Amino acid sequence: METILPKFDSVFSIDCVIFGFQANELKILLIERNEEPFKGWRALPGYIVKKDESIDDAAERILYELTGLRDLHMEQFHTFGDVDRHPQGRVITIAYYALIRIDVQKELKPVTNIAKSAFWYPVNELGKLPFDHAKVFETGFQKLRRRLGYQPIAFELLPEKFTLTQLQTLYEAILNKKLDKRNFRKKMLSYGFLKELDEKQKGVSYRAAKLYRFDRRKYNKIFQNELSING
Amino acid sequence: METILPKFDSVFSIDCVIFGFQANELKILLIERNEEPFKGWRALPGYIVKKDESIDDAAERILYELTGLRDLHMEQFHTFGDVDRHPQGRVITIAYYALIRIDVQKELKPVTNIAKSAFWYPVNELGKLPFDHAKVFETGFQKLRRRLGYQPIAFELLPEKFTLTQLQTLYEAILNKKLDKRNFRKKMLSYGFLKELDEKQKGVSYRAAKLYRFDRRKYNKIFQNELSING
Repeated sequence: METILPKFDSVFSIDCVIFGFQANELKILLIERNEEPFKGWRALPGYIVKKDESIDDAAERILYELTGLRDLHMEQFHTFGDVDRHPQGRVITIAYYALIRIDVQKELKPVTNIAKSAFWYPVNELGKLPFDHAKVFETGFQKLRRRLGYQPIAFELLPEKFTLTQLQTLYEAILNKKLDKRNFRKKMLSYGFLKELDEKQKGVSYRAAKLYRFDRRKYNKIFQNELSING
Repeated sequence: METILPKFDSVFSIDCVIFGFQANELKILLIERNEEPFKGWRALPGYIVKKDESIDDAAERILYELTGLRDLHMEQFHTFGDVDRHPQGRVITIAYYALIRIDVQKELKPVTNIAKSAFWYPVNELGKLPFDHAKVFETGFQKLRRRLGYQPIAFELLPEKFTLTQLQTLYEAILNKKLDKRNFRKKMLSYGFLKELDEKQKGVSYRAAKLYRFDRRKYNKIFQNELSING
């Protein structure tokens, strides 16, 4: 005896929290929405998944269409499914996040009508975001903060060559607190994964600071197996 | 001018990957499904989210109804959204995971008709799972393995008092490889977070081994700030 199953036809969306570091500020990518009734809203890049695409493919397509950015390494970090989170009914959203170097990214330019523009916006000045985007952002930000404790993510946001002041500013922005300059430098240099370069900052009016590079091979050697007995 | 928005009515599910350690084996919780056309299938505990419940609430309810377990600390770990993952159409599933001490858990007993029974099953003998449950399990297992490298999760699975052999067996099960006994003990004891107790195993026919306890306070002291300069 065969059982007839009902067919489901579901709607869900993707939202992206893309972090960057620019002009000594931690920023995220926002868009200005262009279609009614959301016209003029400043929101996270996000939209509805198509019926025939996987959610990972959808995340890539949506970010590209809304901002012009592609080939990022995006990672799913949380799915938001509160009952009333969307005005159009039960729409859950799968949130993705990425860290990028703003200095090597191309121009931001939506390729669809849904977004009027895309831009980097300082995390500290976000203000009100529509839907539950404040919660989505905050969850992504917490994840960033947690990962800072056990992964070298700061160096995915900084330019390839950076000063210790830039590194400290980034840590302070992510941890949302001031750090003692002397302790910070001492600790960071003590690990041994920062390579001092034979170069200084260019084009600054104040005393040019030394530049450093992150040595991933050394990092891996040092932090491999700290607790894990694997290998 | 008001825009009329279409209303969405979506269907999505929860699947649970619950890890436990029992009789020196790493296990997960499975159910035998009871309703056609899935009758007799051995699957991860999972089911459809109701229209009026958040996904976190749904995860708790579904695990309870299918297995009788509740008050677990479950955590969302991934959402699976391949186009053809479910025979009834576009059903994405949000996967949750938890680690529990089997020795302090109550009897497994479904409280709904959807599951005929719930039981612990060795990870090593899983065989074929229905839907994309093999992928869901494998993703959860990878997460467990990664976390072993930076969080003291082994001690959430072991009984409160354990032998070094039990600890090693658990590490070997999660990492899926044999570890050298002498190196393992040396390394684990060198950290200083294992407290040797004045007790030995009871009720064993072979030579009783020493029992240890995990000292979380010491662990926190040691591993706090290893990379993070926070605090």
